[in-house]
Amino acid sequence: MTVREVTMRAHAAEAAVRVTPTAERIAWLNGAADALADNVDLLVEIAGDETHLDEPRLRGEMARTTAQLRFFGDVIADGHYLEVIIDHADATAAPPRPDLRRMLRPIGPVAVFAASNFPFAFSVAGGDTASALAAGCPVVVKAHPGHPDTSKETARLVRASLEDAGAPDGAFDIVEGLQEGIDLAGDRAIKAVAFTGSLRGGKVIHEVCSGRDDPIPFYGELGSLNPVVVTPRADLERGASLAAGLVASFTLGVGQFCTKPGVIIVPTDSTIEGTLPSLLPQDARPMLHPGIAESYRAGMRRAVGTGGAEVISGSLDHHEDAASPVVLGTDIENLMLHRDVLLDEVFGPMTLLVRYRDIDQVGALLDVLTGSLTATIHAGQDEDIDDLVESAGRIAGRVLFDGWPTGVAVTWAQHHGGPWPATTSTHTSVGATAIRRFLRPIVFQDAPARILPPELLEDNPLVVPRRVNGNLEVGPMRAGAGTDRDIDR
Amino acid sequence: MTVREVTMRAHAAEAAVRVTPTAERIAWLNGAADALADNVDLLVEIAGDETHLDEPRLRGEMARTTAQLRFFGDVIADGHYLEVIIDHADATAAPPRPDLRRMLRPIGPVAVFAASNFPFAFSVAGGDTASALAAGCPVVVKAHPGHPDTSKETARLVRASLEDAGAPDGAFDIVEGLQEGIDLAGDRAIKAVAFTGSLRGGKVIHEVCSGRDDPIPFYGELGSLNPVVVTPRADLERGASLAAGLVASFTLGVGQFCTKPGVIIVPTDSTIEGTLPSLLPQDARPMLHPGIAESYRAGMRRAVGTGGAEVISGSLDHHEDAASPVVLGTDIENLMLHRDVLLDEVFGPMTLLVRYRDIDQVGALLDVLTGSLTATIHAGQDEDIDDLVESAGRIAGRVLFDGWPTGVAVTWAQHHGGPWPATTSTHTSVGATAIRRFLRPIVFQDAPARILPPELLEDNPLVVPRRVNGNLEVGPMRAGAGTDRDIDR
Repeated sequence: MTVREVTMRAHAAEAAVRVTPTAERIAWLNGAADALADNVDLLVEIAGDETHLDEPRLRGEMARTTAQLRFFGDVIADGHYLEVIIDHADATAAPPRPDLRRMLRPIGPVAVFAASNFPFAFSVAGGDTASALAAGCPVVVKAHPGHPDTSKETARLVRASLEDAGAPDGAFDIVEGLQEGIDLAGDRAIKAVAFTGSLRGGKVIHEVCSGRDDPIPFYGELGSLNPVVVTPRADLERGASLAAGLVASFTLGVGQFCTKPGVIIVPTDSTIEGTLPSLLPQDARPMLHPGIAESYRAGMRRAVGTGGAEVISGSLDHHEDAASPVVLGTDIENLMLHRDVLLDEVFGPMTLLVRYRDIDQVGALLDVLTGSLTATIHAGQDEDIDDLVESAGRIAGRVLFDGWPTGVAVTWAQHHGGPWPATTSTHTSVGATAIRRFLRPIVFQDAPARILPPELLEDNPLVVPRRVNGNLEVGPMRAGAGTDRDIDR
Repeated sequence: MTVREVTMRAHAAEAAVRVTPTAERIAWLNGAADALADNVDLLVEIAGDETHLDEPRLRGEMARTTAQLRFFGDVIADGHYLEVIIDHADATAAPPRPDLRRMLRPIGPVAVFAASNFPFAFSVAGGDTASALAAGCPVVVKAHPGHPDTSKETARLVRASLEDAGAPDGAFDIVEGLQEGIDLAGDRAIKAVAFTGSLRGGKVIHEVCSGRDDPIPFYGELGSLNPVVVTPRADLERGASLAAGLVASFTLGVGQFCTKPGVIIVPTDSTIEGTLPSLLPQDARPMLHPGIAESYRAGMRRAVGTGGAEVISGSLDHHEDAASPVVLGTDIENLMLHRDVLLDEVFGPMTLLVRYRDIDQVGALLDVLTGSLTATIHAGQDEDIDDLVESAGRIAGRVLFDGWPTGVAVTWAQHHGGPWPATTSTHTSVGATAIRRFLRPIVFQDAPARILPPELLEDNPLVVPRRVNGNLEVGPMRAGAGTDRDIDR
């Protein structure tokens, strides 16, 4: 099928998917999760061949993927995501006020651009697909070329499970190819695009979305430095264990996570810097594909060459398609001088230590960083870090204390987003509220009850949490916690 | 002051405005409302001279403007707008789950581009300013050149009232000028832009926002056709009264409302069409400024000339800066042929009757319309209109039954937005949820209580509605209904 044939099917399915009762959409999500879980051995084998990610990692990722599909079932069962608000008519107001009933409704067919580094959790049946289907939107996935067979097999399983569950034709499909992706984002049937990938690729698709006759939302997650600040007291109190934690975090998954800590801001002569070299694994591990390995080495060479960073530990030597961990170092003054080079995200197991002489220099440094998914603070017990928290909060969507940014729990509260280029909108791409991206408000004014969606009926047959005449009404909850899972990103 | 000096003051005030307690921000909003109310005579006089809007209209608009400022105080007092979500740590989860505490926080300094047609309600102290200040964002207004003295006097009153209320310097300011507006949208201190105006002007500012090194959200409200569908039964049952309602709506405010019904879809040989000419006022009334009057006449001439529409009633003759009402007519076939011309919004007291022979033609017609703020259906008692509602819901943010789209109540449920170009985002620009545009999520992971904002503290000292471990908790409400007001747009 051509892209246009695929999107026409999605368009044709739009109304049917939208009005499918919540319980049935939950069954779709659970059915897809079951189908993937039943075929985990095969999928992990294919994905392992294609991505070089190891089996435990892939099995963990699959567990998270299926949990995520089920979690979005909980989110829609709860009903609060619909943001129902009802204002009754008031004939005594001047002028008289009509009856207004607002809710969120599915935005329409969504294009999901899969990521290279998560063949399951951010790919064909990943978070964006789960949240868009949960919202009631048909989904067309643009497969990532890094794992084509994994994508095809996943799509086959999802499509079959949806068909078994009675979902309309066109509720889910997949396309492949660079030009096909561009055509998909520009297709008039598509009403929103979710994209996880590089800044360069993301900009291309963003421009397609903005340049349409009818521009549509582009929800991109495009890159993140994830700065980590270590105060002198934290370094003094626990520098060696911080070094160990840092190594574990930035080398996890061969450094191929959006949340890899890329800039570590430490005092001069820190215990962390002294300890790191002895902890750094020297073995080279295969990256997702040769292009990423090549970009990794090029990024490091640029940081050392043009950027003037020193190699603290590790080797920049050629490893073919594999990468070994590297720690670079510089001081704040040099970073400010070469920030265009040194603050470019390098995807892979490299991190840059930036030394400060005075903790008061750090706020100004954070202010020049671009937006990040995360910012992390390691401080001493009861240390005053208000200024650091203020600076971190300006640039990041998640501020961590005494932890490491890799590992993103899929929960109600999670926020995986941040100022540009971390994400291109003020919405998360992980966690319950990710569903908001694929919904738009609609209000019915003085509508006869017979045409109202059940969520807006006066007697609230679906027991949806809602605000009526200004007062929040929360009925009995039907969902709960306990289905949250972690995603390492 | 230069634009840069103004934005640097806004930037410097950002943290102070953000952490100002809710009760104080409410006092700012009420103080501004009081200051405007105390000076209503002067403001109405100045605005009348500058805009040619009549005194009752301007007094009504001022009442709505002050009510709107106070209403956003209720919205933030309620606390639900913060979307607080807390997930407790779970050490038994695999992997262990951290403590996550999410809320929305102010996005930072906001640029508000004022509209020409509402010198109060969508201008210096209008809805965007009210919702941004309520959210905790410094505001820099780009004044509309159509009412410069009104803008200056309003700004002076707002600034003085904020100063009296102890707001930080830089919490509110104003700039003027075309280039100044472009500089403002491109300024690195500005974190979001709200714009109400023309598609052409909006596109320029949108491109500035998208072309920055750090693209920022552009919340534009850019135009709307507001289609109205009349079924044969409705025409039969009450065609004459529908004609009267239509005339009142499309001529209100000399047709200078975003919600003016611009396309009326009626059966051939309708009572409405037959009745309209006798109801149409023939007097010419002054428009906001000569440019709008000129565009109005040019738009009508294009519709009749290139577009092949007929004049059903009214005159296209020259009226200098004034406009008299005009009703044009065409059939569906001609509309489809010339839709690029006939579906261009014409700002002013003109509406286009589009005749259908069969109600089944109407769905396809609605499908070719661009996004609108509203779509209205007039049907017979208990008539089956499911297909019409489906089509209307696809293109509009507000679907009305047996009413007229002008008049937008400022309430909790209101949605004033729609698919592009009605608005450029999935957020409203009128009603309680307009505040969401100026907020972004942040999550604190394993944060010590001493650094948490009070809204995220475990014992909930501010009694904010929140979700904890998946369960919604709604405390005693402190706000309520009763402050809603209408805005004619």
